[in-house]
Amino acid sequence: MAHQEKETSGLEWRITLGDGSSKSLVPETGPVSRIWMWLKGLMAGLVLKVWKFLNKAWDIGVEDPRKVIHCLKAGMALTVVSLVYFTRPLYEGVGGNAMWAVMTVVVVFENTVGATISKSLNRVIGTTLAGFLAFGVHWVASLSGQKFEPLIIGASVFLLASAATFSRFIPSVKARFDYGALIFILTFSLVAVSGYRVDKLFALAHQRISTIIIGTCLCILVTMLICPIWAGQELHALTCRNMDKLAGSLEGCVEEYFDNNGELEDSDKHPDKKLLGYKCVLNSKTTEESMANFARLEPAHGRFNFKHPWQQYLKIGSSMRSCAYSIEALNSCIDSENQAPEFIKKRMSNVCLKVSSNSSCVIKELAKTIKTLKKSSSIDFLVEEMSSAVQDLQNEIKSLSSLLSPAELLLPESKETEKTTSTIHLLEVLPVVILASLLIDISSRIQDIVKTVEELANVAEFKEEADDKAKQNQANINRIVPSQQNDDQQTMKALERA
Amino acid sequence: MAHQEKETSGLEWRITLGDGSSKSLVPETGPVSRIWMWLKGLMAGLVLKVWKFLNKAWDIGVEDPRKVIHCLKAGMALTVVSLVYFTRPLYEGVGGNAMWAVMTVVVVFENTVGATISKSLNRVIGTTLAGFLAFGVHWVASLSGQKFEPLIIGASVFLLASAATFSRFIPSVKARFDYGALIFILTFSLVAVSGYRVDKLFALAHQRISTIIIGTCLCILVTMLICPIWAGQELHALTCRNMDKLAGSLEGCVEEYFDNNGELEDSDKHPDKKLLGYKCVLNSKTTEESMANFARLEPAHGRFNFKHPWQQYLKIGSSMRSCAYSIEALNSCIDSENQAPEFIKKRMSNVCLKVSSNSSCVIKELAKTIKTLKKSSSIDFLVEEMSSAVQDLQNEIKSLSSLLSPAELLLPESKETEKTTSTIHLLEVLPVVILASLLIDISSRIQDIVKTVEELANVAEFKEEADDKAKQNQANINRIVPSQQNDDQQTMKALERA
Repeated sequence: MAHQEKETSGLEWRITLGDGSSKSLVPETGPVSRIWMWLKGLMAGLVLKVWKFLNKAWDIGVEDPRKVIHCLKAGMALTVVSLVYFTRPLYEGVGGNAMWAVMTVVVVFENTVGATISKSLNRVIGTTLAGFLAFGVHWVASLSGQKFEPLIIGASVFLLASAATFSRFIPSVKARFDYGALIFILTFSLVAVSGYRVDKLFALAHQRISTIIIGTCLCILVTMLICPIWAGQELHALTCRNMDKLAGSLEGCVEEYFDNNGELEDSDKHPDKKLLGYKCVLNSKTTEESMANFARLEPAHGRFNFKHPWQQYLKIGSSMRSCAYSIEALNSCIDSENQAPEFIKKRMSNVCLKVSSNSSCVIKELAKTIKTLKKSSSIDFLVEEMSSAVQDLQNEIKSLSSLLSPAELLLPESKETEKTTSTIHLLEVLPVVILASLLIDISSRIQDIVKTVEELANVAEFKEEADDKAKQNQANINRIVPSQQNDDQQTMKALERA
Repeated sequence: MAHQEKETSGLEWRITLGDGSSKSLVPETGPVSRIWMWLKGLMAGLVLKVWKFLNKAWDIGVEDPRKVIHCLKAGMALTVVSLVYFTRPLYEGVGGNAMWAVMTVVVVFENTVGATISKSLNRVIGTTLAGFLAFGVHWVASLSGQKFEPLIIGASVFLLASAATFSRFIPSVKARFDYGALIFILTFSLVAVSGYRVDKLFALAHQRISTIIIGTCLCILVTMLICPIWAGQELHALTCRNMDKLAGSLEGCVEEYFDNNGELEDSDKHPDKKLLGYKCVLNSKTTEESMANFARLEPAHGRFNFKHPWQQYLKIGSSMRSCAYSIEALNSCIDSENQAPEFIKKRMSNVCLKVSSNSSCVIKELAKTIKTLKKSSSIDFLVEEMSSAVQDLQNEIKSLSSLLSPAELLLPESKETEKTTSTIHLLEVLPVVILASLLIDISSRIQDIVKTVEELANVAEFKEEADDKAKQNQANINRIVPSQQNDDQQTMKALERA
């Protein structure tokens, strides 16, 4: 692609490169100089591409240094397992099959502890099961004489490979044992078929399984001991982060609609990025599901027990997505061409902003509940406040009716008296009213989130946040996680209100 | 889990099983009979689980027989590659390394042609690249003396494995070369490390690469020649199916809202399933992306060229999702507690139904355009019709204002005169008005879909559907795909209208 571009517009390329010396070469444009130009362009393009790629990689590393740590861990695990080769007693102990240990490390080592454990279990169980089955088939085949042996083995490979491949289409198997089924097919074919040639099957199987166990143990130890990344903790953090994003988007959208841009710019230089936070919630279903699957396998870590109800996080995620769909609709209100007249917007702005800020306070409080693993003492109060704000908004909409009837058209404080003539139609009020009704819809969806979080709190037996110790706890939390400013701001607001 | 349940409530289990003979055993509840009972319960539970699992698997097979065919193909490919073991000349040709061919088949064989080609390319390129690099490192290491050899090899394994692992975090690499990076690490470690022991490196590498090529060629041939499933065709069909679902949901939701249940039940026994079709659109992003990635690698097949613009399908998918978000909001209108009074619903129903049926006609026409790969001759007309229906709806909303003002409250044809008192508030009209405005929003989002489909038609150079031959074409299409009833119904409607 780059090559074509360079060839067809050679002059432009020289200009963009700013290479003055090439001008003198123009008169003698023979095939050699052309090829030279083309090669030069190709090289420059390549260098630029590689440079961009490296830049991107650097950004990814800077953004999440844990990824870099993971890579170093993977490199370390591989180097350690290579020691098996260099250490003669170990090497001979596994009869030169150390290759399988290297292979296991490469394939099994994953980003999170849960994923590594899951793959390890899959590999060990798949190999063992397939090994035993292959033994059985091999034994039967060897009894049935040399004529039938290849037939029996071929048929068994065909049947079992087909069945195992089919099992990977079943959702429950796919979610947990996809890799295991693959390894099952692999091992079964290798053992069943190679048994025909190699007669020392038992020793081979023993060595393979022991090397695989060496590999998996090494991987699990390295992922768990050196800067571990727990799938459970990741899921937990993702849920909190998504809630904060949801709250930010909700508040941001409504503020943007009522043109409070000035305030926004003060507090946040990227309002657009903040507004679109809800899109992360829309797209995190797959991640959440795989994380929850891996988290079930992880031992107790940090503040989480072994039987922490990770599945409940999926329910919370789904209720959050349902809320995000409505925020998507809300967001399209901002871009809509039909806008309500200014004075109606002004009239509605206070009560709408109150609903949105109260709603996002509820979400932030839920995020805090999950973050701290403590039942919130103020959530009922906040939900009540949200409901009363919604009630106010409904009353305000009701009172808008009067605006539409000719009798009470003029607002006493309105400055734009020219506009408030009797021509005001429902259609003009509509944009604001739709926004308002979406806000009401969102607040009812938020109550679903509240329910799912309360379920989590009950199942996981969150402790009560003691009322008298609330302030002290808050102070402690702030000390522990000073970067979570959203949290603080929300608490400040709650204190002001109380 | 099942075991605990049985042990703690043994009696209940007996009742649920309906096993009358067990009653006589109750008096002599010794440990032996208990264990017997428990074992029996365990077995029954297991059998039930296995039975359910098999049932589910059967359903999956019946629903999509191509999955069964894929499994048989996989079994066949594996059996064929096993022949390499049984055929002595072939076996000796690759020096006993036939194992790698089996492994390649197991790992590379995928459901679609594109996925198989992608994995094959990844495996071949990853192996070759890593093999050459490992040779180089090995050569340098062997020159530097026995003391530094393990050091150099260890350091190179660490560095390259870390770098390759990191590259898998970069989105563009992850999408296309994830498996290649894995194979790169694997091969590099194996060759670099094993070279320390095995001295006949070159022969080994040659054999490995040739067995891998045997395996990949076999896989590609089998996937392409026996009932091939093309990723491109799948993406194409998925897009068409999603469009039909979107159209069905849109029409179904509005009909459901205006209580046209009687009609619905006649035409379709599962209205709920039809209503929720849009959810498939919401969840198909990941599938679309991977399909588009694989489709790029596929040769020309069926009606598609090699350079068919598969990326454009992603844009269409994203505009469809944007429409589906609004249908989600529309769907929540149905379940809403606040419903408008019946007479207002009746007044609005005709015009709303017209917008929804026109909109879904547009979507169905787009689906037809993609299905037949022919530019539609009637799409402009249908879009115009949709716009005029939207205009009617807007006028209707405007005229609703008059209902709200005391002067013109009574509708001439209204039967529910008791309800049309002066207490009608904006809040009562609101549910219908919100539904209407969502419909208007949806129709504007549909125009985005129209744009993306038109782009596809231009880039992929769809032929014009000749006006005079339209009917004949339609007849042909109906003959080829008689099951696509939606299509027919839509054409009938279009003909009636014209």
